[in-house]
Amino acid sequence: MEICTRCGKPRESIFEIKCKRCGGPFKYVIDFDYKDKIRENFPYVKEWISLGEGNTPLIKFQNVYLKLDFLNPTGSYKDRGSVTLISYLHQQGIKRIAEDSSGNAGASIAAYGALAGMEVAVFVPENANPSKLKQIEAYNAKVVKVKGSREDVTRQAENSGYYFASHILQPQFRDGIRSLAYEIYRDFKQVEYVFLPTSAGTLLLGVYEGFKHLLESGKIERMPKLISVQTEQVMPVCASLKGLKYNPPEKVTSIADALVSTKPFLLPEMLTVLKETGDCVVVSEDEIKEAWKYLAKHGILVEPSSATVWSAYQKYKVNNAVLVLTGNGLKSLSVNVK
Amino acid sequence: MEICTRCGKPRESIFEIKCKRCGGPFKYVIDFDYKDKIRENFPYVKEWISLGEGNTPLIKFQNVYLKLDFLNPTGSYKDRGSVTLISYLHQQGIKRIAEDSSGNAGASIAAYGALAGMEVAVFVPENANPSKLKQIEAYNAKVVKVKGSREDVTRQAENSGYYFASHILQPQFRDGIRSLAYEIYRDFKQVEYVFLPTSAGTLLLGVYEGFKHLLESGKIERMPKLISVQTEQVMPVCASLKGLKYNPPEKVTSIADALVSTKPFLLPEMLTVLKETGDCVVVSEDEIKEAWKYLAKHGILVEPSSATVWSAYQKYKVNNAVLVLTGNGLKSLSVNVK
Repeated sequence: MEICTRCGKPRESIFEIKCKRCGGPFKYVIDFDYKDKIRENFPYVKEWISLGEGNTPLIKFQNVYLKLDFLNPTGSYKDRGSVTLISYLHQQGIKRIAEDSSGNAGASIAAYGALAGMEVAVFVPENANPSKLKQIEAYNAKVVKVKGSREDVTRQAENSGYYFASHILQPQFRDGIRSLAYEIYRDFKQVEYVFLPTSAGTLLLGVYEGFKHLLESGKIERMPKLISVQTEQVMPVCASLKGLKYNPPEKVTSIADALVSTKPFLLPEMLTVLKETGDCVVVSEDEIKEAWKYLAKHGILVEPSSATVWSAYQKYKVNNAVLVLTGNGLKSLSVNVK
Repeated sequence: MEICTRCGKPRESIFEIKCKRCGGPFKYVIDFDYKDKIRENFPYVKEWISLGEGNTPLIKFQNVYLKLDFLNPTGSYKDRGSVTLISYLHQQGIKRIAEDSSGNAGASIAAYGALAGMEVAVFVPENANPSKLKQIEAYNAKVVKVKGSREDVTRQAENSGYYFASHILQPQFRDGIRSLAYEIYRDFKQVEYVFLPTSAGTLLLGVYEGFKHLLESGKIERMPKLISVQTEQVMPVCASLKGLKYNPPEKVTSIADALVSTKPFLLPEMLTVLKETGDCVVVSEDEIKEAWKYLAKHGILVEPSSATVWSAYQKYKVNNAVLVLTGNGLKSLSVNVK
């Protein structure tokens, strides 16, 4: 079952993208205990249309653990959400889908859609990272560049005539990210801190639901603190949580080009989670560049957006922490980190 | 123990790069039964300097299995050899290393060398793929472009004054590739055909040693057929094996930019292996492009060099086959596959 996170109304069909009553997003309701075979925790997937996502390495690095989720098939953690969403939509008979994305989600949806034999159109902001657009096109998806704001991009995707397979709104996408929490639990047991780059909110909310499920199933004793990391240019979550002054820029120019949600639709949901068990931290451009270089000089090549968690961790220096590295640095070799 | 593959002479020290007596390459001698904990099959590694390599997905795709070895940490199967070589050299106190490579091996050695705190210099041909050079530099290695032939590149790396950590000559590199055979066995048991892009020979020879070890340990009943795949431009192995006419080009312009060994040093060793249990097949540029597009349109983005195995498989259409996809397509987005 899926219900609206805001008013609790059940979702009527896959064609109800936002709640008809209050406009909120839907979430999948978990009404069973955690199962050790991770896939069994996603009972709505009957046949997995899989590219081998998940089961990414967790490595010890200095005093911390790094979850190398950039080693997913399309180079980002999004594949965890695409596999559940696309498998589910395929079962529902959906053949043509639209997505709006600044890059990683678009590439991931394009790849899984391609494997499922769907026709895929990805709507992107004009200034999206060119490597990511090439990747999306390689998967045979149609890339549509949209002038204007991020909201304009979404509007075009919504009104494209294709089924709107939004990674932000579709509950089966966000829900797929639970597998990340399960793997951290499997490899690490009780973790105290998880650092997550935060933009639209799918990563934070998905990981939260996974840990919540583990807690309610008696597998962990307490929720880890989920530390959302944002950039100075795009920090709506930190600003709201901490009452900071924040003026979203007209155009995001940060090297963290996957963190671009200046007005995230899922903001209320993120704030609820962080107030319960988390915090939010802002990192500067210089800190991101330094972190990116530091990781690369130790053999770990991520995209700048992912390096933010290393910067954030420097401000905490806690023990028993996992940093989630979300995007592959091979996607960002054209980005000038100097 | 390590012995010369050609005359059997034991290696005296890590500073004997080629056999003093006959000029041949050394190989590590396996004198113990296969152990299910894969790392225990590499007893010369005391402490793993690891980036989380190996344990890549094996997925069913149509009638065949694809081993997604491009999902290794630096985007190629070479990480299996780098982890064993660099860990071993680190134990031996080596601090400065040189490597010659057209890209993937250089990136991999650079990453693992960086993690081990080594100074790394990578010697590359002038026309190497620019994305791969950027990747090598990101890991803080020095990239030295060499004019002239592939042999000139090797000569400069050899004479650089740094320890020559050649992925081709160092037995602990080639030997690390055994883990690929072990994983295929673990996930698949008795495989009959393994398709491998073949250039310098490390993949073919490493995988061969792994399966040989499994056979001698009674884990598999027979050796799989190892199908080496080469391009029309670079086909010295196929030409020698089958008595075909072959004139190596002055400059390799194939889109399969990781398959550039026109005169591989390990040719005699490769021929021995293929005569015992394998075959060699040549694919054309058009076939590579078609295969690359076909895989990408199904969500699998590899580099063109890796797509060669899909072209080759079309000529065999055997059951019970694993195709090894060696390099990540994110490295090749600048390559024009039209």
